[in-house]
Amino acid sequence: MSEVDDYLAFAHDVLADAGTIAARHFRGGGGVDNKRGAGGYDPVTEADRGVEARIRERITDRFPDHGIVGEEYGVTTGHSPWSWIVDPIDGTRAFVMGLPVWGCLLGLLRDGEPLAGLMHQPVLDETFSGDGEHAWIVRGGQRRRIRVRAEASLEDGILVATHPEMFNTADLARYDALASRVRLMRYGGDCYNYCLLAHGLVDIVVEDRLKPYDIQPLVPIVRGAGGVVTDDAGETPREGFVVAAASRDLHRQALEAMGR
Amino acid sequence: MSEVDDYLAFAHDVLADAGTIAARHFRGGGGVDNKRGAGGYDPVTEADRGVEARIRERITDRFPDHGIVGEEYGVTTGHSPWSWIVDPIDGTRAFVMGLPVWGCLLGLLRDGEPLAGLMHQPVLDETFSGDGEHAWIVRGGQRRRIRVRAEASLEDGILVATHPEMFNTADLARYDALASRVRLMRYGGDCYNYCLLAHGLVDIVVEDRLKPYDIQPLVPIVRGAGGVVTDDAGETPREGFVVAAASRDLHRQALEAMGR
Repeated sequence: MSEVDDYLAFAHDVLADAGTIAARHFRGGGGVDNKRGAGGYDPVTEADRGVEARIRERITDRFPDHGIVGEEYGVTTGHSPWSWIVDPIDGTRAFVMGLPVWGCLLGLLRDGEPLAGLMHQPVLDETFSGDGEHAWIVRGGQRRRIRVRAEASLEDGILVATHPEMFNTADLARYDALASRVRLMRYGGDCYNYCLLAHGLVDIVVEDRLKPYDIQPLVPIVRGAGGVVTDDAGETPREGFVVAAASRDLHRQALEAMGR
Repeated sequence: MSEVDDYLAFAHDVLADAGTIAARHFRGGGGVDNKRGAGGYDPVTEADRGVEARIRERITDRFPDHGIVGEEYGVTTGHSPWSWIVDPIDGTRAFVMGLPVWGCLLGLLRDGEPLAGLMHQPVLDETFSGDGEHAWIVRGGQRRRIRVRAEASLEDGILVATHPEMFNTADLARYDALASRVRLMRYGGDCYNYCLLAHGLVDIVVEDRLKPYDIQPLVPIVRGAGGVVTDDAGETPREGFVVAAASRDLHRQALEAMGR
């Protein structure tokens, strides 16, 4: 196994562990009342913090010199080329609504470049992972390679974005122009959108206003499955605008259809 | 047990059985290639037909005099006050995209009135059910009562609809007016929207252009959990426009905010 393989195996284990905290809070589970009182119980915040704290603790125990960036607890500076990026619950709105289409994200960077990433959904007990060269889904203990639907055409494609409010008015018009060209467009999905693209079930994802921890852990999954994911300058996305597609052709056509 | 309880137990069993057919086709599972060829394999159609055929067969075997209405195979006229309404896969677009937010719907009608209903999600192995007086979720063999979040206010509410294209231009503006009043609005969800309302996690669902089998099985779940669900005339919804809310107050406020 390569060094990255070791890290991936470690990250799988960490997410399986930390994911149980999120699952416990989901839908007010574990006997917790799911009614929000005035300023009262907030299952998302509690789950977010609990998951990220557990992930950070596990990384720090095992790799004390690695850096960590997380949504809830900010930056821990490391003393190594390696660092981790954490979104404890990506898709908090879906989480709040009781829809199991959220995930715990963990990415591995070397010198700031996304090298490997994982998305774990503890309710479904499934994990998507990738190292930029390969991508996998693990369900019920079984690991399978996944691939994008590379032959998809724009006209036959499925386009997704999490929510129209991701876009400003001009960009929503551009998104709608692209949507008018594809077979099917849906909203929702958060991190699942990129994983289902990698799985060959969705063909284009366009989003904006993403945070670094929303997208960087997903880049090696999309690329590992053969997909293309960039910002609007064609570079590795860091935050903000992202377009991901099942092929280089489709990626170019999507940008063109949006007039970018 | 009442007669309706017997029917509910039967329907649970039928959906658990038929749901395995849908799960087998989900994400091209069971080793089936998930790539759509030109005019080739269509997992949704195959799953839809397979699920509905199994449900009809089970009903006809057990209750040969009951009527059946289904999305795929139309109307079987009965010789009894009882009939069933079937949506084998509600949320076919989510199914196609690999998101597990679709469900197999089965409703029981007496003299055309929805008396009991169930939504089964085979990948998550969860079933929501209701008889107009109570509502339940069954997961991992455990049955729990569920209730709407009756104290929700409009300003603190969560509003959902499956997709903006459900509405014509004027109605989308009305929906947006309502959306501007609530804490959170999301698209997506299909049958889950009504079940999560019943579960106290979502507060208002507004949809349009629904078919009878999309909504009638869900009415006894929403009502059983204490929610209110009507068409725009305040009647039991049959098809088309539907507004569901966690309380009578919220239902009225939602209609008012939409200028209805």
